[in-house]
Amino acid sequence: MSKVNKVVLAYSGGLDTSAIIPWLKENYDCEVIAFVADVGQGEEELVGIEEKALASGASACYIADLKEEMVKDYIYPSLKTGAVYEGKYLLGTSMARPIIAKAQVECALEVGADALCHGCTGKGNDQVRFESAYAALAPQLTVIAPWREWDLRSREALLDYLAERKIPTTATLEKIYSRDANAWHISTEGGVLENTWNQSNELCWVWTKDPEDAPNTPEEVSVLIEKGEIVAVDGKAMSPYEALVYLNKKGAEHGVGRIDIVENRLVGIKSRGCYETPGGTIMMEALRAVEQLVLDKESFEFRESIGLKASHLIYDGRWFTPLCRSLLAAADELAQDVNGEVVLKLYKGQVTAVQKRSPNSLYSEEFATFGEDEVYDHSHAGGFIRLYSLASRIRALNEQKK
Amino acid sequence: MSKVNKVVLAYSGGLDTSAIIPWLKENYDCEVIAFVADVGQGEEELVGIEEKALASGASACYIADLKEEMVKDYIYPSLKTGAVYEGKYLLGTSMARPIIAKAQVECALEVGADALCHGCTGKGNDQVRFESAYAALAPQLTVIAPWREWDLRSREALLDYLAERKIPTTATLEKIYSRDANAWHISTEGGVLENTWNQSNELCWVWTKDPEDAPNTPEEVSVLIEKGEIVAVDGKAMSPYEALVYLNKKGAEHGVGRIDIVENRLVGIKSRGCYETPGGTIMMEALRAVEQLVLDKESFEFRESIGLKASHLIYDGRWFTPLCRSLLAAADELAQDVNGEVVLKLYKGQVTAVQKRSPNSLYSEEFATFGEDEVYDHSHAGGFIRLYSLASRIRALNEQKK
Amino acid sequence: MSKVNKVVLAYSGGLDTSAIIPWLKENYDCEVIAFVADVGQGEEELVGIEEKALASGASACYIADLKEEMVKDYIYPSLKTGAVYEGKYLLGTSMARPIIAKAQVECALEVGADALCHGCTGKGNDQVRFESAYAALAPQLTVIAPWREWDLRSREALLDYLAERKIPTTATLEKIYSRDANAWHISTEGGVLENTWNQSNELCWVWTKDPEDAPNTPEEVSVLIEKGEIVAVDGKAMSPYEALVYLNKKGAEHGVGRIDIVENRLVGIKSRGCYETPGGTIMMEALRAVEQLVLDKESFEFRESIGLKASHLIYDGRWFTPLCRSLLAAADELAQDVNGEVVLKLYKGQVTAVQKRSPNSLYSEEFATFGEDEVYDHSHAGGFIRLYSLASRIRALNEQKK
Amino acid sequence: MSKVNKVVLAYSGGLDTSAIIPWLKENYDCEVIAFVADVGQGEEELVGIEEKALASGASACYIADLKEEMVKDYIYPSLKTGAVYEGKYLLGTSMARPIIAKAQVECALEVGADALCHGCTGKGNDQVRFESAYAALAPQLTVIAPWREWDLRSREALLDYLAERKIPTTATLEKIYSRDANAWHISTEGGVLENTWNQSNELCWVWTKDPEDAPNTPEEVSVLIEKGEIVAVDGKAMSPYEALVYLNKKGAEHGVGRIDIVENRLVGIKSRGCYETPGGTIMMEALRAVEQLVLDKESFEFRESIGLKASHLIYDGRWFTPLCRSLLAAADELAQDVNGEVVLKLYKGQVTAVQKRSPNSLYSEEFATFGEDEVYDHSHAGGFIRLYSLASRIRALNEQKK
Repeated sequence: MSKVNKVVLAYSGGLDTSAIIPWLKENYDCEVIAFVADVGQGEEELVGIEEKALASGASACYIADLKEEMVKDYIYPSLKTGAVYEGKYLLGTSMARPIIAKAQVECALEVGADALCHGCTGKGNDQVRFESAYAALAPQLTVIAPWREWDLRSREALLDYLAERKIPTTATLEKIYSRDANAWHISTEGGVLENTWNQSNELCWVWTKDPEDAPNTPEEVSVLIEKGEIVAVDGKAMSPYEALVYLNKKGAEHGVGRIDIVENRLVGIKSRGCYETPGGTIMMEALRAVEQLVLDKESFEFRESIGLKASHLIYDGRWFTPLCRSLLAAADELAQDVNGEVVLKLYKGQVTAVQKRSPNSLYSEEFATFGEDEVYDHSHAGGFIRLYSLASRIRALNEQKK
Repeated sequence: MSKVNKVVLAYSGGLDTSAIIPWLKENYDCEVIAFVADVGQGEEELVGIEEKALASGASACYIADLKEEMVKDYIYPSLKTGAVYEGKYLLGTSMARPIIAKAQVECALEVGADALCHGCTGKGNDQVRFESAYAALAPQLTVIAPWREWDLRSREALLDYLAERKIPTTATLEKIYSRDANAWHISTEGGVLENTWNQSNELCWVWTKDPEDAPNTPEEVSVLIEKGEIVAVDGKAMSPYEALVYLNKKGAEHGVGRIDIVENRLVGIKSRGCYETPGGTIMMEALRAVEQLVLDKESFEFRESIGLKASHLIYDGRWFTPLCRSLLAAADELAQDVNGEVVLKLYKGQVTAVQKRSPNSLYSEEFATFGEDEVYDHSHAGGFIRLYSLASRIRALNEQKK
Repeated sequence: MSKVNKVVLAYSGGLDTSAIIPWLKENYDCEVIAFVADVGQGEEELVGIEEKALASGASACYIADLKEEMVKDYIYPSLKTGAVYEGKYLLGTSMARPIIAKAQVECALEVGADALCHGCTGKGNDQVRFESAYAALAPQLTVIAPWREWDLRSREALLDYLAERKIPTTATLEKIYSRDANAWHISTEGGVLENTWNQSNELCWVWTKDPEDAPNTPEEVSVLIEKGEIVAVDGKAMSPYEALVYLNKKGAEHGVGRIDIVENRLVGIKSRGCYETPGGTIMMEALRAVEQLVLDKESFEFRESIGLKASHLIYDGRWFTPLCRSLLAAADELAQDVNGEVVLKLYKGQVTAVQKRSPNSLYSEEFATFGEDEVYDHSHAGGFIRLYSLASRIRALNEQKK
Repeated sequence: MSKVNKVVLAYSGGLDTSAIIPWLKENYDCEVIAFVADVGQGEEELVGIEEKALASGASACYIADLKEEMVKDYIYPSLKTGAVYEGKYLLGTSMARPIIAKAQVECALEVGADALCHGCTGKGNDQVRFESAYAALAPQLTVIAPWREWDLRSREALLDYLAERKIPTTATLEKIYSRDANAWHISTEGGVLENTWNQSNELCWVWTKDPEDAPNTPEEVSVLIEKGEIVAVDGKAMSPYEALVYLNKKGAEHGVGRIDIVENRLVGIKSRGCYETPGGTIMMEALRAVEQLVLDKESFEFRESIGLKASHLIYDGRWFTPLCRSLLAAADELAQDVNGEVVLKLYKGQVTAVQKRSPNSLYSEEFATFGEDEVYDHSHAGGFIRLYSLASRIRALNEQKK
């Protein structure tokens, strides 16, 4: 066990990180600083969190408001790549990890800590994401991952551990589902979901209405996009975080953004989760709609391949790498033309782009319709096809000669 | 103008190909054979089609039933790749073209024709798809594309052309929307859709109920999959075509499978269409759901990249190429493990996989949950992360030394 | 035939473009401006070129020195992507076309021309490259491609055409090989090369010594690289063009940079050529050598995939597209770490990087060797492997249960 | 420490695995079976190996001749993908590991062993390759990796360990370079190579002549290829292994197949090695030469992308995975046309394909040359280019309107 003096812990106020504070002090004989990242997980998780941290034995508690920065510098760039993990997952937890880790590292450097600690379990992705970020940003700091070290193996053990030390907690023994939330999404795992043949139930969904309970009347929202970034919604200029909050409310009301997925974790196992990303799902649909107007065929395909690659990089916690910077640069370049306006219809769990326009649109009514025009001459197609299929023709002629 | 004696025309019975028959005879002084492909476009388009062809001047009319073969040999292999064009389009028209062209070529070879003819316009994809298939399958045959040759430039001109020749037609002047259908999908273009800022209206949708008019109660269907192919639905073994027809009915009832897209055509312009693929959308969702269970992370990513590549190949009419065969072989290999059962919920335009299981599932309740197990030891993760992020660490240590 | 008043012709002084001047005047009744791009094709091709152009009937002749700009803004960015077409070809002709076209367009806009003309044949790539650049940069200008219009079908016909008009030319009837040169490379096609079973002979190689005639003693050059660009050679700071000229001389002396390739042209046919890129081959090897030191595994693979994609884009004349900009941005981002020094050995046709170092090197003698170190703990590997192969293990256990 | 009864060790006869036998017996109290794979590493390494194993304490020693199978079932399929790791490395060690592991597992199952053991170090790739194969083929067996367990940390310690136990060895203290050989290649690491700024010296190269010492006269070999596999050399039918041995001799004589590379290991560090693959380099060049004739543009690009992907999979020990099978299937499909004959010139370290022909060649003298022909009409190019550049044109027209 390394000798450390001062540890900065990514603290959530939940049962796990509450137990980690005394555990660190006892096992490492060190000072513990609680670091809380506000990434939009919700007021209820932040109220009284400083008191809670101090009561658990932290010597100080710092809270960093990262909400606006997260949407602007992590989510918007990711959206430009079109990253969707394994065809479904909008990377809600993944995108929050690097910014939390970065702010935690900055806190650690500021307070002169020599170690970093997180409360992620040993079977999950988040440990990899946190520690990959630490490695890239502060390789000199020691990393402590209690879940891979201690022998506390159940919720009950944690509660006992706190009770023995008379540390107050509001956590209860009964907690079937494990959740993670930030401004972009909330995830639910465990319980009934552990058998893939079980259907999810109402406990698996937190933010969004069940589509069956959503309004019977559709609602429209309009989104204005500049260089691949949403700059206004329903006619009102909004910051990235404001736009997300606004669209979250709209989407949730209409049951938009639910997915129930079995995914490949980075550590080699599969897990199942129910994820809700109401506003994000609307944003994604809006961006893709403008792309339909402005990206040419080869650019669209490349944007899709970037998105596929980026989805793995982001999921895998590779944010602070040259490769990720390279992909984001490629996507940002393509996004220079992604300007326009989209009207989206929300209804019973679905979001559909029903109107779209762009000053950069390559679509032209004149070109697309039946008749002749100045740009497109029907006769061009003959030559095009001939050369386009020439290798096939030569190959077939070859075969016939045999 | 090449000299030809006998032409086999891909004949639909519509206005265009009806005019093409006399036009060919007059301009090429040749015999015209009408070839009709039954790809599930619907009874109403086939009733009396032979009489119609003969009345237009064809010397013979052959009808080939390609429905089962199309689903089995073209659609199912494509589904294994996961091909979706530009993120939305299930390639309905694209997948039908190669099989029609192939059967048309076979007909031409059988009747000793020296030319092939199609009625596709000069601005579309289908001319490329037909002629690319011709080039690969019968490069020795002359290809005639009347739309790129004649000076008939409007519906009115075509009607006049037929009237002058006293050829009967049921076509009317007023036809706002252009449609194409086969067992897999129906597409609608033109009219109000020509301005991307217009919303689609009820005329743009043919097969599927408007989600708002769909039943208020969800319905479930169950699908059994073997090696990436659907072999039974709702407990009943079905052939590929039967399964599609069955799921089309279910999907259409619930408004499933509508998309409204602006896409890049192969010929360099963009066009907008409303496409309905009710059964196909269910099939696609079912396959992807089993893949979630059985494909490991790298295989899933590769399957997605194959799908992206295949979507362009298929859209672009490259079916009969070595590259397409190579992609299909790769996808088929991955599909060997895609076995399982999925329950899907249909509701108001959405299809959602709500239950899934597979004998090849890599998901394991034991591994995924919190506790220790025999396969996964929490402590492994520490070493994994260390090596996983080692290059980042070395890079960062390097930077610090500067 | 469109009506044009003033045409700017990409003029080389060769037989083809000499005939094009009078042909344009006669057939289009227009003024012809000769535009000459100096891309390092060699003094002998530029001497007296203005007089020649005027003697052929041009009203003016402009010569633009593009040498430095070509290497700096076209070749260096391409090198960062690692683009090599079909595994061999360093894109010598391809990279010169966009800059020539761009300068030609600028000339046309300046002199108020309404048309652009080039002398590329109808079976080659260059027509596509020129006209794709024109389309992107000046779509309003008419494009004239005489080789696709006139009925002059042989060298003899061209000579007769000039003789009839008493236009002097130094061209002779006997010209077996067709060549194209710029600072980066020289290509040779035709003659004995037309049969792929023939070996090339001494007429197929112009710049470089036959390796068998090259010095029996190897020579070393050292190259300094900053952010993926060569900034000094053999200890002397050099501009991009200077570095290329210097390395061309060294490489040519040692027979470096010859390839004899059958390649896929963009227009669907294959052609064979002998290409010499002496300096470029050295540059490429030098860059790749530094990349070995600084790029991590995933970045290296992505750089290779960018290079593959870029090779086609550049070959295909897609330089002035959003997609190309996107790829170049991605490559440039990765090149930020490509700093270092390489010593290369030239010998009998080969160039080999024999020494390399970089301030950004991820290679560390300490880490790479046998023993323990602070960064790498042997025991980490056990956990790494376990998780790395976990999906395989689960899959195999699964299979055994069946 | 797991309890095991009988271990099958991948035994090489070298110092490391000689020490492992007694170490296993002492530390695991188990029977040890030595398994020797003959993959063409050379007679001198196999002579007396059984005696050696028994003298070290093994209860039995099995030798499996895998030479022919390795070339046929591992190397030839890999060659079809075109896999070259990080642009240079022909995967010599990587391709041998899966077949050795597979044969070792088969041996273990046959003798009823409950554990597998290898002598790979904890910083290398081979431990991952061996154990990934074990996980896929026999997940139920325990894996022992002594280098990650014991505290013997130097050559000296190993010699002492053997001496204490009176186990004879021919190993000496002084061994600067570490080597690995099989029929395909030999690698050399360590010593002077540990500093990337050092040039390699004569001790770094074992099989091949220094190009400077190679014959001054070039030599030609001819290779016959069927479906991507070499079936005859210099006019004589040869099995895969025979062809490799024959070409190794030719190549080595001319100094062909040397690379000196810094590569990214799978475990996150970089290492430098000198690799010699004389015959393999000739084989690779021969295959690529036929591909130039037979693969169309898109197929060639896809083959290259498969090769890139396969190079990582193979390097990373992913042979026995669905993804690897999928890639090999894709490559094999493309290889169906790779038939032909190539003459290659060997000279002073270089191998160059100087003549090539194929019954499937898409190259045609008629099409490639200047004049008109039946297949290619110059005028087709005009239409082709127009549509090919249409999106660029529309985009530019758009920009001008702003």
